[in-house]
Amino acid sequence: MTGGGGTVGQLNVIRTVDGVRAAIAGWRRAGETVALIPTMGYLHEGHLALVDHGRRLCQRTVASLFVNPIQFGPTEDLDRYPRDEAGDRNKLQAAGCDLLYAPTVAEMYPPGFATGISVTGVSGGLCGAARPQMFGGVATVVTKLLLQTLPDVAVFGEKDYQQVLVIRRFVRDLDIPVRIEGAPTVREADGLALSSRNSYLTAAERGQAPVLFQTLTEAVGRLQEGGEVGPVLAEARARILAAGFSKLDYLELRDAETLEPLERTDRPGRLLVAAWLGRARLIDNVAVPEGKAQ
Amino acid sequence: MTGGGGTVGQLNVIRTVDGVRAAIAGWRRAGETVALIPTMGYLHEGHLALVDHGRRLCQRTVASLFVNPIQFGPTEDLDRYPRDEAGDRNKLQAAGCDLLYAPTVAEMYPPGFATGISVTGVSGGLCGAARPQMFGGVATVVTKLLLQTLPDVAVFGEKDYQQVLVIRRFVRDLDIPVRIEGAPTVREADGLALSSRNSYLTAAERGQAPVLFQTLTEAVGRLQEGGEVGPVLAEARARILAAGFSKLDYLELRDAETLEPLERTDRPGRLLVAAWLGRARLIDNVAVPEGKAQ
Repeated sequence: MTGGGGTVGQLNVIRTVDGVRAAIAGWRRAGETVALIPTMGYLHEGHLALVDHGRRLCQRTVASLFVNPIQFGPTEDLDRYPRDEAGDRNKLQAAGCDLLYAPTVAEMYPPGFATGISVTGVSGGLCGAARPQMFGGVATVVTKLLLQTLPDVAVFGEKDYQQVLVIRRFVRDLDIPVRIEGAPTVREADGLALSSRNSYLTAAERGQAPVLFQTLTEAVGRLQEGGEVGPVLAEARARILAAGFSKLDYLELRDAETLEPLERTDRPGRLLVAAWLGRARLIDNVAVPEGKAQ
Repeated sequence: MTGGGGTVGQLNVIRTVDGVRAAIAGWRRAGETVALIPTMGYLHEGHLALVDHGRRLCQRTVASLFVNPIQFGPTEDLDRYPRDEAGDRNKLQAAGCDLLYAPTVAEMYPPGFATGISVTGVSGGLCGAARPQMFGGVATVVTKLLLQTLPDVAVFGEKDYQQVLVIRRFVRDLDIPVRIEGAPTVREADGLALSSRNSYLTAAERGQAPVLFQTLTEAVGRLQEGGEVGPVLAEARARILAAGFSKLDYLELRDAETLEPLERTDRPGRLLVAAWLGRARLIDNVAVPEGKAQ
């Protein structure tokens, strides 16, 4: 069951669909439950919290590592996306993960591959507007990973909030028999959301980056105190640009479930942001509870 | 396990995803294998041959009956598509089928449904050109049916040859863990391929309809004798129109696996036709073996 990559004493690495199916079938025969944690690698504490989340729900956890080319646009960072499989393997082993599934691009998209999955509604706007190919690519690769492994549960981080909603949507629509779990964002002590792309930040930029989360948190506070949505968001946008971010893709208040734009806090909302700092496009989001009547 | 529709002495009918999953889970616990036969109902001997095919491969067979609205275009025959669930149920029972799964449209596409599957390559041209929404609709509904039931095998008729290739393509691409079986077209004594849409034909049209298959068969004969593809196809097209068909959507020679156009019979080919006779759009296809060098 090593699938070509296992080494004694180290976490087993499997690179083929047949291999991961055989490993999981062995667990299934023993009556064990399975959680999948899909990742693009370069793992940090946020990913390991997802593994931990999976371990609390299931007896076995599989982490997948695949930098999915079809969710990157032609001018995006596919080629420089950070990678460290050996380090990832050690971290997963220390976190108690049972298996690393790291398929090749040729295994995932062999010649002749011709199928795409698209999701309307929750995938529109926000990152779906800034990165038009992303959610189709995410839907296609996550469907493949889920159908390759057929886990009981798959765990995704709420740092990618819109992505979690897109995944819930197509999993429900296509009747993929798996439960989707969202796990809270893990943050540095200064509030910056953990992200593999934080590695793109220079030391100076790293000092500026926490403004993103601070601004979201303050905006939520003002909304809770009865502040009007339009002015609160306008001030938040200005503050982020004033703090050294070069470009704001969006900072918006949306319905927490449908992602429809919200003009008042009369329903559970989510405040979401994407902004550029140096070479890094950083995203973050926070819950906006129902506020006072306005 | 009746799912709301079972009656003693009659084939069990289930209308919900949960219901069909529970029924199949019972068989799985007993170690039984399962074949799915997806249909749009109004069953004829061609469908029952698919059930028979499934019974030879698996211990249990489930036939699904669902007239899938999203694969019909706005001007197509969704509203008048023939239906006879009671008759279908009797035929399936007589054929030894174990279960009829007949979900409602609301069960398959509840409010908020927002996901689509598209397939390029084999879905282009032929019926994909004449009915631009069809194969996306087929891919989406077949994916749902396969993931609702997770059979070992699913059986489809080769009368819809391009559809079988599209299904094989996305099943492979999405890693849906099921084996796709194509079963040969069943024909009337005079050669007409069985089809629920033959019910649209008047008695006079029914008399003209066999020209479709006769023309294909003769064209294959001429190709086998060394006839040039262009002239042979041109003559076949003319003959079908001369026999009373009002319109030809296509009559083409394609590669049997990729569906790329073939200009000579130097590879295994497929001759495919779609033509209108009265209110009925009839399709058919035949194998074209590799011919003599030209």
